[in-house]
Amino acid sequence: MKKTVGIIGGMGPAATCDLMEKIIALTKASRDQDHLHIITDCNTAIPDRTEAILRGGPDPVPELQKSARLLEAAGAELLIMPCNTAHYYYADVAAAVHIPVLHIARETAAVLRDAGVRAAGVLATDGTVQSGVYGDALAQAGVEALYPSAPMQEQVMRLIYQGVKARAIPLASVPVEDIIRDLRDRGAEKLVLACTELPIAFRALGLTDGCLDPTRVLAFAAVKAAGAETTAPDPW
Amino acid sequence: MKKTVGIIGGMGPAATCDLMEKIIALTKASRDQDHLHIITDCNTAIPDRTEAILRGGPDPVPELQKSARLLEAAGAELLIMPCNTAHYYYADVAAAVHIPVLHIARETAAVLRDAGVRAAGVLATDGTVQSGVYGDALAQAGVEALYPSAPMQEQVMRLIYQGVKARAIPLASVPVEDIIRDLRDRGAEKLVLACTELPIAFRALGLTDGCLDPTRVLAFAAVKAAGAETTAPDPW
Repeated sequence: MKKTVGIIGGMGPAATCDLMEKIIALTKASRDQDHLHIITDCNTAIPDRTEAILRGGPDPVPELQKSARLLEAAGAELLIMPCNTAHYYYADVAAAVHIPVLHIARETAAVLRDAGVRAAGVLATDGTVQSGVYGDALAQAGVEALYPSAPMQEQVMRLIYQGVKARAIPLASVPVEDIIRDLRDRGAEKLVLACTELPIAFRALGLTDGCLDPTRVLAFAAVKAAGAETTAPDPW
Repeated sequence: MKKTVGIIGGMGPAATCDLMEKIIALTKASRDQDHLHIITDCNTAIPDRTEAILRGGPDPVPELQKSARLLEAAGAELLIMPCNTAHYYYADVAAAVHIPVLHIARETAAVLRDAGVRAAGVLATDGTVQSGVYGDALAQAGVEALYPSAPMQEQVMRLIYQGVKARAIPLASVPVEDIIRDLRDRGAEKLVLACTELPIAFRALGLTDGCLDPTRVLAFAAVKAAGAETTAPDPW
């Protein structure tokens, strides 16, 4: 019997759909009924995570826990959160329910470790970087996390906010290849695109080679944890 | 206070994501928190609707009602179903809950009526056509429903099943322009693409002019019913 997957969503709504689509694409199925039962709480009342971590904004924990409990009560048997930054509150979410909660950064770290990666570049928002979500998970898996230099991190933020979210500047105006080269020169064997906007930008720029998409990793892990067969051998 | 939208999904999972994306795109929002709270039950245990209607397959009603009740209990204040054929069971679903359930075909019929359309072509699966879901809704709105001739209906099924679902034949190998011309010649002022696969095919073929996408109509109606502002003046 396959398990019902619960998604704590709404952070943002588009990333929630993206995760659902990746789960569907990664599930071996020849008809609707072969797909996993997924319950999604696209809870847009969850306050902004980066605002809370960096600038003392409203605490997201009560709404995150409310969604987790709602999904457990509705029948979810495992939970996932399609928001890298929200994993700063992982322990609070896991403590609110009696079912497993997969951790996007720990799953990503395990995939890197299993691929023999010793050092990986982490591209993410300032909030995710400073929360230590990826640094901690990679360290626990024995993988060194490398971050862009301060001016390069500003360009990553420009790519995410002006390039993808606001569509205010051409993606090609951000020196992404310089960012990649700098991280590779410092020893990064692979890159983790640890913000839901980044795989979109990297795909558009044709630069996904050697990059790992944590949303895809999370989708892959959820399909396996739910007991379904995957359509790919690994999440790369 | 905006209402929480519940989606009875999983019929199929991809169409469920498509509806969610259309709701997100049609909601006026400048940040995650402006979007609607949506709870989706992607319940893939719901048996095939066409099988049940045309060939006496397992009854979908118990699982449809289970999802409806689950969503109401979780806090949904109105329900929608992204599956045209499932609306054959609309009365059973509506009877299971105390919250409104929007009707995809009735919403579509109202949009046609409001646009002054007197006759519309309906393209759908055999199951949707024979269930009378659109015929009844259009008739109640005073809009005449026109269907393709039997050989043309076979081509519509080929487009849906071999063209889009299985990707086994090129879309252009289906005489879609002949189907459209035949319906127009018989008096169809507009076309309703009443199967979730059809807008995909029509977009790829560049033939969406004068076509109404009921999933978009349902998304638009849900955004309005939930009390949010829409990004477009109408669902055309």
